[in-house]
Amino acid sequence: MRYLHHFCLQPFCRTLRIVLREKDLDFELVEERPGERREELLRLNPSGEVPVLVEPDGTAYADCQAIVEYLDEIYPEPSLIGRSAGARAEIRRLAAWFDRKFDREVSSRLLDEKIVKRMVRNGQPDSNAIRIAGANLSIHLEYIAWLADRRTWLGGEHFSLADIAAAAHLSIVDYLGDIPWERHPEAKDWYARVKSRPSFRPLLADHLPGAPPPAHYADLDF
Amino acid sequence: MRYLHHFCLQPFCRTLRIVLREKDLDFELVEERPGERREELLRLNPSGEVPVLVEPDGTAYADCQAIVEYLDEIYPEPSLIGRSAGARAEIRRLAAWFDRKFDREVSSRLLDEKIVKRMVRNGQPDSNAIRIAGANLSIHLEYIAWLADRRTWLGGEHFSLADIAAAAHLSIVDYLGDIPWERHPEAKDWYARVKSRPSFRPLLADHLPGAPPPAHYADLDF
Repeated sequence: MRYLHHFCLQPFCRTLRIVLREKDLDFELVEERPGERREELLRLNPSGEVPVLVEPDGTAYADCQAIVEYLDEIYPEPSLIGRSAGARAEIRRLAAWFDRKFDREVSSRLLDEKIVKRMVRNGQPDSNAIRIAGANLSIHLEYIAWLADRRTWLGGEHFSLADIAAAAHLSIVDYLGDIPWERHPEAKDWYARVKSRPSFRPLLADHLPGAPPPAHYADLDF
Repeated sequence: MRYLHHFCLQPFCRTLRIVLREKDLDFELVEERPGERREELLRLNPSGEVPVLVEPDGTAYADCQAIVEYLDEIYPEPSLIGRSAGARAEIRRLAAWFDRKFDREVSSRLLDEKIVKRMVRNGQPDSNAIRIAGANLSIHLEYIAWLADRRTWLGGEHFSLADIAAAAHLSIVDYLGDIPWERHPEAKDWYARVKSRPSFRPLLADHLPGAPPPAHYADLDF
């Protein structure tokens, strides 16, 4: 069997859950708690971070982008990174936009304030940090609208890693109830299309004890 | 001509300067100042961030990892990401280790405190943040020693993106005079081998006005 060590509200783990299902690869989830750094996890990945993928032959792979590239090479259909060097450069640029910029400015910040601080350090959220993340979020939603207005999917004609990375990060913010969808109809329309894909459904059933999502989170007609 | 928009002390820009030289590709540098976000740069990359590579046909590429992957596809010799899917996964994992973990825990933190704060906001460095980055640095230098003890280069038998990313980040910390090399002889030995490569030499001539490097920075027998 193939195992994915993950935490359900970590965006990079969500990206891999979607990628594995889009490629129709069977896997089982192994839950890891933020900050716990279990011995077994450290043996698989010395950084102690999730996601870690353990392939059926027992080989462990770490780092989301490295794992996606690996899976797209070994199981090329359907391609999620693009069919030409130029298309791949654009899809990787956008995936990095969400994995680095959106992560730093919005999703990691909100996740840290609202969930990790409490789980790991028994701390209280910093309302100023949450306010700044909300202001940053609007700019990113406008960029998604701009892209969705010009292309079928964010990275071009086909559904790709660009959509998956963007939706993985946005879905965390949506779980936390922080997206003002009514002010961003174009981004909402694109997100609804991702949300209705079978690969995305299991994420909508996630439920962290003590921190349930808002009612619209799992609703396909939100 | 090919142009690389960069800031000389930004690690991702340094990675690309090394990659372009390892692949023997001609290019000219275009200097960008942190936080300035010139109109032309924003047209090339809506995030306003460096590095941006403009190819001879005028196409602009953004994001370091996306550009490295693009260059390695278009100009495959010498390969810098590895020859098998497994080798590539390991090299990409290590490149991400330095580009994400080392960057967050050490290089971005020091660069921000010691250079960017002053250039962009006329601010003062936070000595506590600098102390924490120094403590984190030791752990990374030990990991480099552990890898260098078991492999010819960090990612395996061949010089690769793993060495380039690691050296690009470390070279920033070395420019700032913050590496206690005498306490880390194995990491020093590996860094000396990278430093002596012709592709690395131009970085040793970098000189930011008002913030010169220490004398040992450009010395191959440091």
